[in-house]
Amino acid sequence: MSTGSYVKIVEVGPRDGLQNIKEIISTENKVAYVQMLVEAGCRHIEVASFVHPRWVPQLADSAELYDNIAKKQGICYSALVPNAKGMERAIEAGVQEVAVFISASETFSLKNTNAPVAEILQQLRQVMDMARQSNIPVRGYVTTSFGCPFEGTVSAQKVVDLTGRLFDLGVYAVSLGDTIGVAVPTDVEWVLEAVLPRFNAERIGLHMHDTRGTALANVLKGLELGMTTFDTSAGGLGGCPFAPGAAGNLATEDLVYALDRMGIETKIDLGKLTQASRFMEQVLGYPLPSKCLQAMKASCQ
Amino acid sequence: MSTGSYVKIVEVGPRDGLQNIKEIISTENKVAYVQMLVEAGCRHIEVASFVHPRWVPQLADSAELYDNIAKKQGICYSALVPNAKGMERAIEAGVQEVAVFISASETFSLKNTNAPVAEILQQLRQVMDMARQSNIPVRGYVTTSFGCPFEGTVSAQKVVDLTGRLFDLGVYAVSLGDTIGVAVPTDVEWVLEAVLPRFNAERIGLHMHDTRGTALANVLKGLELGMTTFDTSAGGLGGCPFAPGAAGNLATEDLVYALDRMGIETKIDLGKLTQASRFMEQVLGYPLPSKCLQAMKASCQ
Repeated sequence: MSTGSYVKIVEVGPRDGLQNIKEIISTENKVAYVQMLVEAGCRHIEVASFVHPRWVPQLADSAELYDNIAKKQGICYSALVPNAKGMERAIEAGVQEVAVFISASETFSLKNTNAPVAEILQQLRQVMDMARQSNIPVRGYVTTSFGCPFEGTVSAQKVVDLTGRLFDLGVYAVSLGDTIGVAVPTDVEWVLEAVLPRFNAERIGLHMHDTRGTALANVLKGLELGMTTFDTSAGGLGGCPFAPGAAGNLATEDLVYALDRMGIETKIDLGKLTQASRFMEQVLGYPLPSKCLQAMKASCQ
Repeated sequence: MSTGSYVKIVEVGPRDGLQNIKEIISTENKVAYVQMLVEAGCRHIEVASFVHPRWVPQLADSAELYDNIAKKQGICYSALVPNAKGMERAIEAGVQEVAVFISASETFSLKNTNAPVAEILQQLRQVMDMARQSNIPVRGYVTTSFGCPFEGTVSAQKVVDLTGRLFDLGVYAVSLGDTIGVAVPTDVEWVLEAVLPRFNAERIGLHMHDTRGTALANVLKGLELGMTTFDTSAGGLGGCPFAPGAAGNLATEDLVYALDRMGIETKIDLGKLTQASRFMEQVLGYPLPSKCLQAMKASCQ
């Protein structure tokens, strides 16, 4: 395996991990969770979302949450923003960085955001102008980059085109999302063979969901192909063993364990990370799906 | 990825999957489970174990179970055998094929089987003689090939040596086990770089436990390196989301899903396979850990 010696992990547990969880978590507990992630060594954390509170009630407290986090020097606390209205709220909340998203599937875009891809690009133009004026760096997601629940296969060329459009609009990095967790490593090869010749691998990330248990294999394939940025959620938050099919992101623990053993640095302390996950298990009242977390819990008993 | 077009899956759910489950499953339910696995297309199933019933009470009914399975032409129903006494019972039960095991770690051998590796090899010599006389093919496991809970790292040369000893004794194939589920793909590369130049890849298998979520990535690395035989258990049986740290084999569903999507044939029908797993979920009263199984269940709701 030809791999670099450092991997950047973008921790998305507080946002992507929590957003589908029905039971509303208190702002206080979210703040404590973020604090524990920082203590574990996470340096880039997506902590909030300024989508409409009706869409994601769990994250309706994002402004208050953002305000209550004791920001630490050198840590990036970012927030998801869907449109100009969300960007306005994010700026009001004083966010350091935002993330925007666009779907590689026309049908998914219509179902998820009620607008075709071209219209979302127009909206993003406005968001990017606002970000530029407020000097806020923007990260971009291309969702459903590896498959769509409605269209099935997604064209790698479409992923390349949208990645290019996002860079043209001014994002500093693009993360390719397997939103519904269908990809296998050959899909990752297929998409990255189209993407990597066009863009610097350091500016491309992978954001894999573990719906079918393939996320770690996919990320390690990306690593082999020269990628160094991966989005994960502590404990695999977002999935729940009690709710069939509710699958979270690749668990941060599972990736950090694998990378540690491969001699690749992440600056994340696995033991401290599991403390953050165990805290969320207590808050939620059920075990999180990360296999590595469960193995570490068992070995402590 | 350079891969072949056919993968042989050895289904070990009824043996390795069940052996650590405390609640005793009825022989009738085990027979029904095996039957469902056959209907799903599994062609090599490890159905029983002739270890001492005190060691593994769950499989104490192995002779009766083996007798009650309606054997189908072209399907291999095998049984694990630890020593001559077990082999005697296996022959009495009329088994078609047996599997033997030896540990690549001296300490694990002492703790697991109460005997050093050299003594186990002596015992296996006797087992192999009995197998030869009864015309029973034997498959061999080298357990803890990728790490030992007591010794930590295991030497790849030790794995090569024991694989060679097993072939010398007359086994037709050797499966390398990550018994405690610690391996990552670089470990697989490390071991296979030592093993594959010495032996035909078609005669070597991988038997990975998913304790830390790395099993699929490991198997797909093995596939890339030219291997075509992998041991899995339907539903990831052996692990339980309610029992932290109780981790099963790589789930058959998760591997078949990945291979299907990669265009690699297994002759296993994923839909029918989940019926077998769902049956075991009903018998056990809790969900099995396979992510793909859970995703498929959710999509049927």
